[in-house]
Amino acid sequence: MVQFNFLCNMGGNTFGKLFSITTFGESHGEGIGVVIDGCPAGLDIDPQKIEQDLQRRRPGQSKVTTSRNEPDSCSILSGTLNNKTTGAPIALWIANTNQQSKDYKHLEHSFRPSHADYSYYAKYGIRDHKGGGRSSARETAARVAAGAIAKMLLDHYKVTIQAYVYAVGSISLNETSAIDYTEIEQNIVRCPNKDIATSMISAIGQIKKAGNTVGGIVKCEITGVPVGLGEPVFDRLNADLAKAMMSINAVKGFELGSGFEATRMMGSEHNDVFEMNEGKIVTKTNYSGGIQGGISNGMPIYFKVAFKPVSTIMQSQSSINTEGENVQLEAKGRHDPCVVPRAVPIVEAMAALTLADHLLRARASKI
Amino acid sequence: MVQFNFLCNMGGNTFGKLFSITTFGESHGEGIGVVIDGCPAGLDIDPQKIEQDLQRRRPGQSKVTTSRNEPDSCSILSGTLNNKTTGAPIALWIANTNQQSKDYKHLEHSFRPSHADYSYYAKYGIRDHKGGGRSSARETAARVAAGAIAKMLLDHYKVTIQAYVYAVGSISLNETSAIDYTEIEQNIVRCPNKDIATSMISAIGQIKKAGNTVGGIVKCEITGVPVGLGEPVFDRLNADLAKAMMSINAVKGFELGSGFEATRMMGSEHNDVFEMNEGKIVTKTNYSGGIQGGISNGMPIYFKVAFKPVSTIMQSQSSINTEGENVQLEAKGRHDPCVVPRAVPIVEAMAALTLADHLLRARASKI
Amino acid sequence: MVQFNFLCNMGGNTFGKLFSITTFGESHGEGIGVVIDGCPAGLDIDPQKIEQDLQRRRPGQSKVTTSRNEPDSCSILSGTLNNKTTGAPIALWIANTNQQSKDYKHLEHSFRPSHADYSYYAKYGIRDHKGGGRSSARETAARVAAGAIAKMLLDHYKVTIQAYVYAVGSISLNETSAIDYTEIEQNIVRCPNKDIATSMISAIGQIKKAGNTVGGIVKCEITGVPVGLGEPVFDRLNADLAKAMMSINAVKGFELGSGFEATRMMGSEHNDVFEMNEGKIVTKTNYSGGIQGGISNGMPIYFKVAFKPVSTIMQSQSSINTEGENVQLEAKGRHDPCVVPRAVPIVEAMAALTLADHLLRARASKI
Amino acid sequence: MVQFNFLCNMGGNTFGKLFSITTFGESHGEGIGVVIDGCPAGLDIDPQKIEQDLQRRRPGQSKVTTSRNEPDSCSILSGTLNNKTTGAPIALWIANTNQQSKDYKHLEHSFRPSHADYSYYAKYGIRDHKGGGRSSARETAARVAAGAIAKMLLDHYKVTIQAYVYAVGSISLNETSAIDYTEIEQNIVRCPNKDIATSMISAIGQIKKAGNTVGGIVKCEITGVPVGLGEPVFDRLNADLAKAMMSINAVKGFELGSGFEATRMMGSEHNDVFEMNEGKIVTKTNYSGGIQGGISNGMPIYFKVAFKPVSTIMQSQSSINTEGENVQLEAKGRHDPCVVPRAVPIVEAMAALTLADHLLRARASKI
Repeated sequence: MVQFNFLCNMGGNTFGKLFSITTFGESHGEGIGVVIDGCPAGLDIDPQKIEQDLQRRRPGQSKVTTSRNEPDSCSILSGTLNNKTTGAPIALWIANTNQQSKDYKHLEHSFRPSHADYSYYAKYGIRDHKGGGRSSARETAARVAAGAIAKMLLDHYKVTIQAYVYAVGSISLNETSAIDYTEIEQNIVRCPNKDIATSMISAIGQIKKAGNTVGGIVKCEITGVPVGLGEPVFDRLNADLAKAMMSINAVKGFELGSGFEATRMMGSEHNDVFEMNEGKIVTKTNYSGGIQGGISNGMPIYFKVAFKPVSTIMQSQSSINTEGENVQLEAKGRHDPCVVPRAVPIVEAMAALTLADHLLRARASKI
Repeated sequence: MVQFNFLCNMGGNTFGKLFSITTFGESHGEGIGVVIDGCPAGLDIDPQKIEQDLQRRRPGQSKVTTSRNEPDSCSILSGTLNNKTTGAPIALWIANTNQQSKDYKHLEHSFRPSHADYSYYAKYGIRDHKGGGRSSARETAARVAAGAIAKMLLDHYKVTIQAYVYAVGSISLNETSAIDYTEIEQNIVRCPNKDIATSMISAIGQIKKAGNTVGGIVKCEITGVPVGLGEPVFDRLNADLAKAMMSINAVKGFELGSGFEATRMMGSEHNDVFEMNEGKIVTKTNYSGGIQGGISNGMPIYFKVAFKPVSTIMQSQSSINTEGENVQLEAKGRHDPCVVPRAVPIVEAMAALTLADHLLRARASKI
Repeated sequence: MVQFNFLCNMGGNTFGKLFSITTFGESHGEGIGVVIDGCPAGLDIDPQKIEQDLQRRRPGQSKVTTSRNEPDSCSILSGTLNNKTTGAPIALWIANTNQQSKDYKHLEHSFRPSHADYSYYAKYGIRDHKGGGRSSARETAARVAAGAIAKMLLDHYKVTIQAYVYAVGSISLNETSAIDYTEIEQNIVRCPNKDIATSMISAIGQIKKAGNTVGGIVKCEITGVPVGLGEPVFDRLNADLAKAMMSINAVKGFELGSGFEATRMMGSEHNDVFEMNEGKIVTKTNYSGGIQGGISNGMPIYFKVAFKPVSTIMQSQSSINTEGENVQLEAKGRHDPCVVPRAVPIVEAMAALTLADHLLRARASKI
Repeated sequence: MVQFNFLCNMGGNTFGKLFSITTFGESHGEGIGVVIDGCPAGLDIDPQKIEQDLQRRRPGQSKVTTSRNEPDSCSILSGTLNNKTTGAPIALWIANTNQQSKDYKHLEHSFRPSHADYSYYAKYGIRDHKGGGRSSARETAARVAAGAIAKMLLDHYKVTIQAYVYAVGSISLNETSAIDYTEIEQNIVRCPNKDIATSMISAIGQIKKAGNTVGGIVKCEITGVPVGLGEPVFDRLNADLAKAMMSINAVKGFELGSGFEATRMMGSEHNDVFEMNEGKIVTKTNYSGGIQGGISNGMPIYFKVAFKPVSTIMQSQSSINTEGENVQLEAKGRHDPCVVPRAVPIVEAMAALTLADHLLRARASKI
């Protein structure tokens, strides 16, 4: 017998102070939704762009992802009039359609290793075991949909966000790799270097065949950011980006600009020297990653996000059930061998939501 | 001439939802302060413990830190009665005493490389150049003072936080290094391994002599955390820890548990298998770093924080002034060659503030 | 020509800090919805109770309300498992079914007197004229649905909320009127005194016949409130109740306990003297209305809410259109002659949401 | 013996979302302070104006107020450079100087009728009995100081706030009274009609002589408000004003525009008809009080605030102590016979803080 000391929940499903989203829904429930509050009125909404990003995230899109096949079409329930935002909250809804809850029946009372099963049960005293319930990465579909609208707002201000796969296991780009942005959506792993993409795809294929999974890194680049976004001392732009990324399922690390490499550098190497370029202040190098003192400095913002290997493997694993007894778990269902190709639009979405929020927070001119 | 497009500020100096702090003050102003709102009534306050943590952070404490010598004594302005909290907001105040503002006179119109000078000026249109003003790491004294009170609250719940220096430049502990926690406060670099500490101290000495600076890594371990802290999907415990750490000056990266190493691992290696231990559910390994699905699972929480090299170097550097003209900057004043020894209590303070907040958020039992 | 200087919107559709709701939807759009975040796990949800309160609010329920006939049935989209809350956000959805948008066609470019037409247009630069769009009182259906769940939580803690109609125009209860709580839902005007109810119904009938409307007062009583709810100095229980009530459409005033009458009293009359009653501290009188210093004192909480006459009258009115030209407006559609009978469940819902939030904020015991 | 079930506190000392204040300090502690976060950079600060408003609030200013004599001088601890705001948080500090804590010794274990003594003790389990501690109206000095800075911001945008005494007991202005704004600061009761002021002063004198106290009404008028402030559906401008006012000590009621009088009116009387005036849209009447649908419509905003009689009377009163025993309380100390003359600047301050916050929330233009 295990003694549980259940704790009450106190919210936590809202992100953003002015451009603010609240997500809801479970993996095998009615669907997944999100309410955006604070989107300025008068913004043109292109529903196709929401669908496009959802397609980039959706399962079943290629052989390197899960074979679950969810169309993930999004309805706009409120907040627009003739495809223009009205200033009212925008609710988006993605109905669930292809759930196979029976795949999870055997997990009702067991805790899968490195999943949220145990910590959710121990916290809430009740757990929706079907597909992970609320802890499922399916929830990120709502973020991608909301992020698509944030991107439309950023687009209006000429801010561009592009993420891509930087590493799959130990197959990785490095600082000198050739980068071709047009390549990203041309290969199923979303790597901007065709040769490395091919290696990644082949590696994922082998790992999948072995019933195993592997981690990876997504890199994100943001250009066109005005100088002055970020609200020190706590709501620094980098701090809010870090929170945004670490709130994504399976993320284990975040680094801005030089990141952990900076810890091995000296000040004389790492300092980004200011100079003029066509009437604008720029820096010669950009180890700062576009953010200094928590505030954007006009240089490109870039950061890396570390994803762990997917916890569901097609191998037998020992575990514990709610009674504290040993159990042996056999995976069923359809799962991703590597999450990073589908994580690319999720990282972009969370970056877009963070930037949109900070854009509104810093929107007015000084006195 | 440079065209600035100043942006308005919109707050950002508050951290925490229920155990909430707001810091204020500048490096060379009257002092540094903090208001804690939401600390439960009836907590015993030991002012000595606040002083102790301030001593661990204060400049001038050893030859590996700056030679500025600030006593950093803290007054409690409100919120206690006979050293017990009353439930009213607790204001703490650390007067500035040893500022040498003349050291900064030559910087009034210039932007130091990799400092916040430029981004602050471009955002606010006005900059307190003396010692960095609000962007100075002196602001973290307020966090350390508030963190000491958060630690008293956590202590009541048997939660313990210990940070230490993991790496200075490329001199680093690794997974197999001997760790002696009692050693941490015995050496001036705060490394739990005496031999490696000696190497670090020697390395910092050489770098200082060369007028240069170096980065480093602080690792933090938290034990005794109850199962169930963290509020998915956005206010995950790891997401709020990441934001807390990335809000500290000079931080470039954060990784929980296995961190970036996880990206090179396979699911079969990385999964933390559950088992029973003395009636409690534990995991055999702890790559998750004590947090699963954003919620603490009762295992020790641990994470690493990457600090860049200090931007102020004792070497001449080229830069730009507010008119967009080239200038040559010579460093004056008293600065740290490596920030990590003094960052240890700051990391602990931000961890304590995050945990105290989540403890209050998850404090009541389920229905 | 009118010069408009449109202002951006910055959210505002969320209420509550821990038991937090976000509403969305428009009068003539797809429907009205709400997301509740922070409802504790393990609460039994009775969907019938949601329907019952929606029935009390819905149009077309009697001859004293509008003849619009909306069934207002509510779907639970997320957050429950077998009718128990899981701690995940609870989304509720009420589809629109009986909209007659053509009734509003003639108002597309005109501003109805004392409606939100002008201020919405001037703020957002775009207006959903059909049925008032987001400014319609139809939005309160979402509050009533969420409030029904808040009532289930309060019920668990033995807190009871009862509102009723206190006055319609100048027909009013007074301090000495006989009150029969069982009568409230027995008459269509929801007044706890049968005779006065009869007078109110008759008065509304006459006003309706004249194509006019009338204001009124709703009184709300809350019993079983534990001592200690309310978070001074700003989040006083009375301050949050006032905000809750003033956020309801058509509300013009709020008074707690003795209210405006207190301004004409002397301290010696008004002071509520403490005494013991069955081992509990009570007050002899309750001019304080159950809240002292912003904190509940265990006595019944009661307050009054003033509603203005409905702005839509069946009479011709002059106004201005978006071009600044004079127009003559003829009312069409189906409207309420007096809003207070239907406002009773709305006042209860907002009171329940405020109390539930404060109950969670004050839920843990002191150290 | 009384059984107490102490509840934990969860903050509540912050007001405002973007222009945000956090107050701290107790009546007989070190002093009273406030941190303003979110004040735009570049605003000129005139410390004299802070002092002036503090003088209007301070005790001992005239024979109609308490004879306590506190100079209430305010220090600016942070956030300005050469009397210009820098965008950093602004901390203000008013040291306590004239406390006579011995006046409260006899109250250490007793609960004064209609004070916050009992509810504070029952909530926090610890009470600073000296002068009411945190529950003292002395806390409002911090609001007045912060409000003075909010007024400087509003002044920049041509928004003007003027409050005055509308009623003392049953001596009251009415809709037809002559109003001379220049008179307000010319008489000690702050009434804009000299004759009525004289009656009020005489009435307060008699009540004071009888050892009694009396309530009153403060009216506040705000002009120059741009169209479009207020964030429906919850953060309506009127809802936030109501919360602001109800958060002031001793306030029992709030009414906007026509207020409770509206409940007795018919739609045909109450509707504010739009018309053009010098190219601007205005309303013929202003029963709406300048706010429609929660959003300012450009007309003057006005509201009334009801204050109860001061609870401390110079008469013997029976009460209960912490042991549940009957006690007889004799008032000592120096107290106000009527709070409204000193409440005028407090009402103005809370109005200014609310308007400043909403001005920042609605500051950017639509897309």
